[in-house]
Amino acid sequence: MTDNFVITNVQMLTAGGEVKTGNIHVNGDKISAIGVGEVTGENVIDGRGKFATPGLINAHTHASMTLLRSYSDDKALMDWLEKDIWPIEAKMTRKDIYWGAALAAVEMIRGGTTAFADMYGPCMDEVAKVVDESGMRGSLSRGLISFVNGDEKLAENVELYKNYHGAADGRITVMFAPHAIYTCPPEYLKKVAAQAGKLGAEIHMHMNETQTEINDSIKNYGKRPFEVVAETGLFDTGTLAAHCVWLSDSEIEIIKAKKIRVAHNPGSNMKLASGIAPVSKLLAEGVTVALGTDGTSSNNNLDMLEEIRLATLLAKVATLNPLTVPAAQAVQMATEFGAKAIGLENVGRLEIGCKADIVLWDMNGADWQPNYNPISLLVYSANSSAADTVIVDGKILMQGRELKTLDEEKIIAEFNACANRLTNQ
Amino acid sequence: MTDNFVITNVQMLTAGGEVKTGNIHVNGDKISAIGVGEVTGENVIDGRGKFATPGLINAHTHASMTLLRSYSDDKALMDWLEKDIWPIEAKMTRKDIYWGAALAAVEMIRGGTTAFADMYGPCMDEVAKVVDESGMRGSLSRGLISFVNGDEKLAENVELYKNYHGAADGRITVMFAPHAIYTCPPEYLKKVAAQAGKLGAEIHMHMNETQTEINDSIKNYGKRPFEVVAETGLFDTGTLAAHCVWLSDSEIEIIKAKKIRVAHNPGSNMKLASGIAPVSKLLAEGVTVALGTDGTSSNNNLDMLEEIRLATLLAKVATLNPLTVPAAQAVQMATEFGAKAIGLENVGRLEIGCKADIVLWDMNGADWQPNYNPISLLVYSANSSAADTVIVDGKILMQGRELKTLDEEKIIAEFNACANRLTNQ
Repeated sequence: MTDNFVITNVQMLTAGGEVKTGNIHVNGDKISAIGVGEVTGENVIDGRGKFATPGLINAHTHASMTLLRSYSDDKALMDWLEKDIWPIEAKMTRKDIYWGAALAAVEMIRGGTTAFADMYGPCMDEVAKVVDESGMRGSLSRGLISFVNGDEKLAENVELYKNYHGAADGRITVMFAPHAIYTCPPEYLKKVAAQAGKLGAEIHMHMNETQTEINDSIKNYGKRPFEVVAETGLFDTGTLAAHCVWLSDSEIEIIKAKKIRVAHNPGSNMKLASGIAPVSKLLAEGVTVALGTDGTSSNNNLDMLEEIRLATLLAKVATLNPLTVPAAQAVQMATEFGAKAIGLENVGRLEIGCKADIVLWDMNGADWQPNYNPISLLVYSANSSAADTVIVDGKILMQGRELKTLDEEKIIAEFNACANRLTNQ
Repeated sequence: MTDNFVITNVQMLTAGGEVKTGNIHVNGDKISAIGVGEVTGENVIDGRGKFATPGLINAHTHASMTLLRSYSDDKALMDWLEKDIWPIEAKMTRKDIYWGAALAAVEMIRGGTTAFADMYGPCMDEVAKVVDESGMRGSLSRGLISFVNGDEKLAENVELYKNYHGAADGRITVMFAPHAIYTCPPEYLKKVAAQAGKLGAEIHMHMNETQTEINDSIKNYGKRPFEVVAETGLFDTGTLAAHCVWLSDSEIEIIKAKKIRVAHNPGSNMKLASGIAPVSKLLAEGVTVALGTDGTSSNNNLDMLEEIRLATLLAKVATLNPLTVPAAQAVQMATEFGAKAIGLENVGRLEIGCKADIVLWDMNGADWQPNYNPISLLVYSANSSAADTVIVDGKILMQGRELKTLDEEKIIAEFNACANRLTNQ
């Protein structure tokens, strides 16, 4: 099915957070109308028994790290990174990056994710290829660790921007990704800021993930991370800050003043025991808080519905307030706020004129009964296998749980060949 | 397939928490052998691409509350209970209890759960019927709130015990369920203790779920809940204590001295913002900590794989220790410890002579790649839709995701008719 079609008689989550039933008209890449009444014709998707939401947006991940899923878990952070993760990453080739990202795309589409912000590298052009082929949206960046070949990596990020920002009908965008304050000293951040400023490019960076990071920043620079980075000018072109677990009030003021968007990663923060981000407080202060899975070595999946659930459950128990982050707001974090966070306009809402990025969730399973409130069912009961149909830019990427753009069997086989080679050589 | 069969070439989780590959021989209701080598014949289940674990055990739920799923969420506890939940529960009939539990059984089997401890009522004989028909194991109890007809309810629990303890080839057991210290004063608990003592029956009770409960106990009795209840004699026949979120050191000493088993409910404790139970500490002290979902109004599903994940993630972030509750231990809580918690012997381990309660998880999905460690994949990546085959007492309840003992379509229809009547009358 292409170009124009109508999803009929579907329960849908409106931009206002309410549920209504009707028809969603898709014309080209956009939602052209939302209405009620009978619709007939060939280009009809029967929406009965389905719940339509905007596509989920993974605002922070490292897609090709799928290759390392289940390779090393339940370890202390530095043991894990230095002994297990980094040695394997050092061996990754162009081919690994491609098949790792392809497997990630399969998993993301299967779970209702339509867009993702990816920080990894080298060879991010391979991830761009996967975004192009899969039909997803991707906001890509070359992870920059200054210590080894920092200038070369920065040049790669510039190349990536020049070659791919706005590519694939605008489905690919590019950001600059200085990895973190502990891997990029201020002098290097100034270089990144200068390049990004010249191009008008935005920034994607890990910020304030662990207590150690804060303590080291104070020890090395006499200031907290947001204060150090703000002075480099890096936050001046627009920033997506991942994690933001440990924040002082003055850092929250910087986040607000610089309009920094936060990617909250509850699953990763819990698994790595990083801490609990002050999500309720940030939302109350009007900060755009999106959700991300982080990489599959620290999560260990790309399941955004799980992040939605974790975000609301963790916020509730952390504040001992059952009213905080209600179900509709948790979905908003993964849709409307996700789009804002990764720099997309007119994405993340089921609204006339918005991009047709839509997921239809199958409500027939036992865990969807009874249906008093499909938002509550999606957030507190269902799992991601309920994603039945996934539409991006008006194109169908999955229907009836069948992938339309990717060859899943081939991808899994090639992916496992890469993983075997990486860990056995 | 009945009586004797062999699951061949399957990766399996051993009782020691290691993974090995081989054949599991089932003879009658038991695992008769675990070995390697070629096996042929008709009664073979091909285990390639599957991961065999013991069946998951839900150590605390209220099955028929499925009828109230998604009816009321994101509310303060007393608002939720008094305005929404209790008025509907008061209208439930015998038929509602049956179909509510039947829907719960469908959902539990589909998610790899083979046994559950249920506290609800009246008409728990209807839940017993569902346990019998479904082929699951159930440890049933009549929820006792003393204020209205307390003696009558206690008599119902006695009847339930006499009629069903050991029924359905031993798959049904019965406990006594005083609801909580704030709904059952000490004088009533003494009556329950006397009846349970006479029959040698065990206790299933909510303990120390919220801070309010502790404060009220101190206000009313000058002591903390475990201290008050211990003095009634209620803990003397064996006890399953649900929640145990807020515990003093002296209460942990009571738990150890009375060999009380704890049912930890991370999903419910997070959603209701009750607090974080000291799971790592209890495990370190040698306490049997099992996992439960609680009812589907406060969770909102019966997905034990989700509870396993929440248990390890929440323990890690609460202690800021990524090494606590590693993956294999989280599974052990939901299997071996679950069996101990609900009073079952020779259940919850893949071991010769144990009951053949087995789940085969399908490892072909993208979220199971690459397979460096299936325990890690199960706990940190997969979702419960990977449950492919479920075996209880040597009988197959689901195979290839097809239910063998329950008519899912009919159950969903009847269940929704009950839910509609309850909320529309």
